Amino acid sequence: MNTFGERLRLTTYGESHGKGIGGVLDGLPSGIKIDREWLQTFLNYRRPGSSSFVSPRNESDLVEILSGVDTQDYTTGAPIGLYIPNQDVRSEDYRSLSQAYRPGHADYTYHLKYGLPPQAGGGRASARETAIRCAAAGLLLPWLSREGITIHPYMQQVGSVQLPQQAVPHLDLTAWDSCYQYSMRCPHTEWNAAMQQELLEAQREGDSVGGVIACMIRGVPAGLGSPLYHKLSAQLAYAMFSIPAVKGFAIGDGYALASQRGSASNDAMQVDASGNISFATNHSGGITGGISTGQEIFFTVACKPTATIAIPQTSCTTSGKATILEGKGRHDPCLALRATTVIHAMASLVIADALLARQDEISAVNR
Amino acid sequence: MNTFGERLRLTTYGESHGKGIGGVLDGLPSGIKIDREWLQTFLNYRRPGSSSFVSPRNESDLVEILSGVDTQDYTTGAPIGLYIPNQDVRSEDYRSLSQAYRPGHADYTYHLKYGLPPQAGGGRASARETAIRCAAAGLLLPWLSREGITIHPYMQQVGSVQLPQQAVPHLDLTAWDSCYQYSMRCPHTEWNAAMQQELLEAQREGDSVGGVIACMIRGVPAGLGSPLYHKLSAQLAYAMFSIPAVKGFAIGDGYALASQRGSASNDAMQVDASGNISFATNHSGGITGGISTGQEIFFTVACKPTATIAIPQTSCTTSGKATILEGKGRHDPCLALRATTVIHAMASLVIADALLARQDEISAVNR
Amino acid sequence: MNTFGERLRLTTYGESHGKGIGGVLDGLPSGIKIDREWLQTFLNYRRPGSSSFVSPRNESDLVEILSGVDTQDYTTGAPIGLYIPNQDVRSEDYRSLSQAYRPGHADYTYHLKYGLPPQAGGGRASARETAIRCAAAGLLLPWLSREGITIHPYMQQVGSVQLPQQAVPHLDLTAWDSCYQYSMRCPHTEWNAAMQQELLEAQREGDSVGGVIACMIRGVPAGLGSPLYHKLSAQLAYAMFSIPAVKGFAIGDGYALASQRGSASNDAMQVDASGNISFATNHSGGITGGISTGQEIFFTVACKPTATIAIPQTSCTTSGKATILEGKGRHDPCLALRATTVIHAMASLVIADALLARQDEISAVNR
Amino acid sequence: MNTFGERLRLTTYGESHGKGIGGVLDGLPSGIKIDREWLQTFLNYRRPGSSSFVSPRNESDLVEILSGVDTQDYTTGAPIGLYIPNQDVRSEDYRSLSQAYRPGHADYTYHLKYGLPPQAGGGRASARETAIRCAAAGLLLPWLSREGITIHPYMQQVGSVQLPQQAVPHLDLTAWDSCYQYSMRCPHTEWNAAMQQELLEAQREGDSVGGVIACMIRGVPAGLGSPLYHKLSAQLAYAMFSIPAVKGFAIGDGYALASQRGSASNDAMQVDASGNISFATNHSGGITGGISTGQEIFFTVACKPTATIAIPQTSCTTSGKATILEGKGRHDPCLALRATTVIHAMASLVIADALLARQDEISAVNR
Repeated sequence: MNTFGERLRLTTYGESHGKGIGGVLDGLPSGIKIDREWLQTFLNYRRPGSSSFVSPRNESDLVEILSGVDTQDYTTGAPIGLYIPNQDVRSEDYRSLSQAYRPGHADYTYHLKYGLPPQAGGGRASARETAIRCAAAGLLLPWLSREGITIHPYMQQVGSVQLPQQAVPHLDLTAWDSCYQYSMRCPHTEWNAAMQQELLEAQREGDSVGGVIACMIRGVPAGLGSPLYHKLSAQLAYAMFSIPAVKGFAIGDGYALASQRGSASNDAMQVDASGNISFATNHSGGITGGISTGQEIFFTVACKPTATIAIPQTSCTTSGKATILEGKGRHDPCLALRATTVIHAMASLVIADALLARQDEISAVNR
Repeated sequence: MNTFGERLRLTTYGESHGKGIGGVLDGLPSGIKIDREWLQTFLNYRRPGSSSFVSPRNESDLVEILSGVDTQDYTTGAPIGLYIPNQDVRSEDYRSLSQAYRPGHADYTYHLKYGLPPQAGGGRASARETAIRCAAAGLLLPWLSREGITIHPYMQQVGSVQLPQQAVPHLDLTAWDSCYQYSMRCPHTEWNAAMQQELLEAQREGDSVGGVIACMIRGVPAGLGSPLYHKLSAQLAYAMFSIPAVKGFAIGDGYALASQRGSASNDAMQVDASGNISFATNHSGGITGGISTGQEIFFTVACKPTATIAIPQTSCTTSGKATILEGKGRHDPCLALRATTVIHAMASLVIADALLARQDEISAVNR
Repeated sequence: MNTFGERLRLTTYGESHGKGIGGVLDGLPSGIKIDREWLQTFLNYRRPGSSSFVSPRNESDLVEILSGVDTQDYTTGAPIGLYIPNQDVRSEDYRSLSQAYRPGHADYTYHLKYGLPPQAGGGRASARETAIRCAAAGLLLPWLSREGITIHPYMQQVGSVQLPQQAVPHLDLTAWDSCYQYSMRCPHTEWNAAMQQELLEAQREGDSVGGVIACMIRGVPAGLGSPLYHKLSAQLAYAMFSIPAVKGFAIGDGYALASQRGSASNDAMQVDASGNISFATNHSGGITGGISTGQEIFFTVACKPTATIAIPQTSCTTSGKATILEGKGRHDPCLALRATTVIHAMASLVIADALLARQDEISAVNR
Repeated sequence: MNTFGERLRLTTYGESHGKGIGGVLDGLPSGIKIDREWLQTFLNYRRPGSSSFVSPRNESDLVEILSGVDTQDYTTGAPIGLYIPNQDVRSEDYRSLSQAYRPGHADYTYHLKYGLPPQAGGGRASARETAIRCAAAGLLLPWLSREGITIHPYMQQVGSVQLPQQAVPHLDLTAWDSCYQYSMRCPHTEWNAAMQQELLEAQREGDSVGGVIACMIRGVPAGLGSPLYHKLSAQLAYAMFSIPAVKGFAIGDGYALASQRGSASNDAMQVDASGNISFATNHSGGITGGISTGQEIFFTVACKPTATIAIPQTSCTTSGKATILEGKGRHDPCLALRATTVIHAMASLVIADALLARQDEISAVNR
């Protein structure tokens, strides 16, 4: 199904090389002020064609808001229709591929599932669909910001270049969009340069690299998320794994917790002179028992390298003949770069959904 | 909400130190033969009190099937009621804790969310609820096995002891339950012993350790999972993060993919003389574009150390007073041990759900 | 699927002549006081064996609350497990029927759908399942009452005896359960007697009759229900049609509105000296555009006659042979009698669900 | 929420006097041939401005298919984006109404729920949204027809003119769209004329009338629908009550069953010489125990008169002042006329959803 979320639901449609892509954001209460300029700014962070490090496909990604917003740009409580016409459609680039399965792509699995041969540009499986997720997030982020919640993704690793732990305190994370001022989305001049160097080398060789994106969410109130299956951590994991190329997700100290002792990994609670409760550490990444603690939420997402590369690869055709495949289309040398904005977007959908769900629970309790 | 799954849905209820725990498994078609003995065997793998390495709480975990099965032990298509009465309830053990927040537990977040003080034994947040998930899995696993699908979890890391890559081909994974013959669920005599040593040391010091569980799923047909949000990988991630103490999930080569090149990480497709298509490698872990490829599915799950330890910890009470907390209750020195069975169970729920969903899609296509 | 509701969800299981019937009520906030005695009282209104006008099956219908309620009988926010053991199981009564399809029953459709021959006592299709709906309602009704909402069903028609419009103002509807003091659930001494006479005649002839139940809901705040598909009227219709034997549902003036003019059927709005807005009439039955207006909600439900009768009927067996079928089991001469309590229950589930949903919407708006 | 359906889901957006209306149809399998010409024909049956008996609003209702269909007009399994631009938007017609609540409309309830004053033309509450439901149905109906399923709505009552039972066998129901050749959607020359006379009288007086639409569904296989809550009858009831102005729904003999005896209302089963099972009668309307029997499905829907009339009405403004309101906009004298097409559409959505759900169940049973 093509719908994400419970209280707040995004349904998307459209193909990479079709007329356009669109979506319906349903469940946002009335009376929320939206910011059209800001929305477009956010979409531009994900947009292809903006630098030599991303796909040269030239899309202005201008989003139309078709409904759900009144003449003063306040939401009305009705579903919000979003639409982005495709502009730079060149399905001929993909024609030579159309009868061969591209390794690492969904061509083969889609063919088996839907009985359809590989579609130009990946059709629905293309990352182009994520533009609509960013459009939805562009409506949500200013509202979350007014609620005191800001989301700060940043690049932690590009190929073999990994941001060291000691560099983290020196990151430029002042504004919600600081990372977008850096070519590699790593808000640290030296490390951004090192990552860029790594990317350029792969690109020069016609190859691609993977990456790890970290994300901090500040200002999330305690009490978001459900105890059992619909834990806030599970919602975030589900959201991140819906992004193409994602292969790993960890929260707080993540895999490093496996080798720790409980006496070291527990986040001790402390009380100050005024009786305010706080935590001494944040190994848990701001979520315990599936519910937000009020601390900063922290998680990482691992992306595999872009599947399409310029280097020839052995593959086979839909009729079962061996073939050599050379990637032509227009692709990103490191999907993790643009995935940063999509991670930003999906985090905003999860937090907004959980925030709306909690209103209900709390108001019922306080009756 | 306390329901897991789409086509096949498990709804659970019950508290750790209440009358018992139960669940309703809804959506299983009629005509599936169940195996009561086998079901109990599977539950015993998760059961506490079975060795010195797990909680001494003495529960026989005998499950009652209240409905949905006919006199010949075939499902009828009606919902299956499952119930396990609690036997060894000792909420007095927890009484001294009842006014203090236990670090690393959900006491604090539950209090904020529901306005209720920490409950004896964690109430709903306790891992005891997972027994019902295992009961549901005990109904599904024989059916999946008849469909040719077997699930093989095994311990990959306990504390700092990590199974090396070269030991993997020597694992004893012949039967679906091979790992349960090993105290640490690592089906490799030497490495199991090393892990046990690591656990004993932590236990001796009154401390706990974390772990990483790997899981292979064999025989999954190609075409399971949905393209966009409800990817099979996203479903597995969501399922694993619903298990207490889980902090990381990765599929295929996972985080290692971030430092690879696309030319190395793509799984090339090949054709043999008879025209059969296969993959040269399986870096993707058996899922591409969110849909199963027909290869073995492989993923790992990281668990934090058990939060409750015998070592005194600083904390605070519900009334905001600093306190020193000593863990008394009965707890596991390494939750990852019993989590292995729960991972097994949740994987079976995800695969069975996706299998039922696919029936629908395929039959519709083939009309 | 065996789950009803969105924010508040009831999942049921169990067969008519199995071990028992049960359910899970999920989504009720913490801190709601329940009333065990009252709950049992409400169940008794639906219970068989209580008079000569209902099935003689002898069930005490004592409900066990297995979870979700604390020691002071307040809800904890966790799912509430409910269970009623079956006592008077006599599947032998049905044995002669077991290979013949009973006319008007679900035997034939269940056989086609699930590939199973007719089950003793109707299995899951039996009205026995509705006892759990009443148990859930027994938890909700005192809470709704504290919110100022009371539900008043009453019998409007038994067979050909129909309560005239002019008798309505003389109905005894003071308490929420006034109707249950009357054998036919018609809180009007003369008309109750006339209906009873009608029933006795049918019963004497070994036949059954249908009926129409009316239901008023007082104190529902304005603003419940969703505009488009999930209209409050649509939710009520869906809920009522989930009750066995229901064949019609109408709100407000219902079918009579078809022959009216708009100038007569519109409910004019008026303002009193203090500026309070009110309606001059209530043809719409308290719901306009799918949303409650704050007026009394009014609807009717039509039930067909009980399918099982003592009079011999022509039918056929599962192997396709003509047969004459004589009803033996224990059945109600007029299902509408006990349906009154089930309508009461389903109305409470719908209103409670809509009330919880609205909390969310309103609190979001008022931020 | 603005989504209808389970396996097959329609999500709509757009306002009556906004840019346009749209929707996403999700869950249709790949490989279904669509018919663009036919789709437009069906939309025209609902279109305003087509005769003197419906609203003069001039909308060509040309639908754009934005995704989910390949170049040969086969579905791809991806969600289908539908869009209809609004053309004849005249919100100035409604301006004088903008501060007064229109009796019988959703103005007051929307204001209370969303905190927004009455919108021009009813905004989301307007029947204009139903055009997208008809667009979705226009995709489904040819497919259902190829499956042997046809849907035949017809007008049964306009105001006080009611089609007598003995006229039913003489109705012209040969084609699926026979009724649309008749101005009143009553495919019987004399009775259509009588209904038209009734309508003209009301229209002349500036008033409006209600109506009852009947609907037959032929060719539905046995086994559609779920036993308990999601009965096929409950799904139809829910669907019909989602249509503006609907106040009653009954299946089979409906309310008339209340006054029948069981011996008369049971549909006896019979076997012919070849062993084929059939029913002697169809009082149940083709659904028993919530599941289709394989007989013709029959139901009726009652619509109230159009709320907007030319006759002045007393009402009040949003600021609580009494006012006299004269309807200006462009409205239908009898909503039931155009509702006929919407009932047709909603019935197709329910049947297609149930058909897809059943594929799954049956294939699982037959393994």
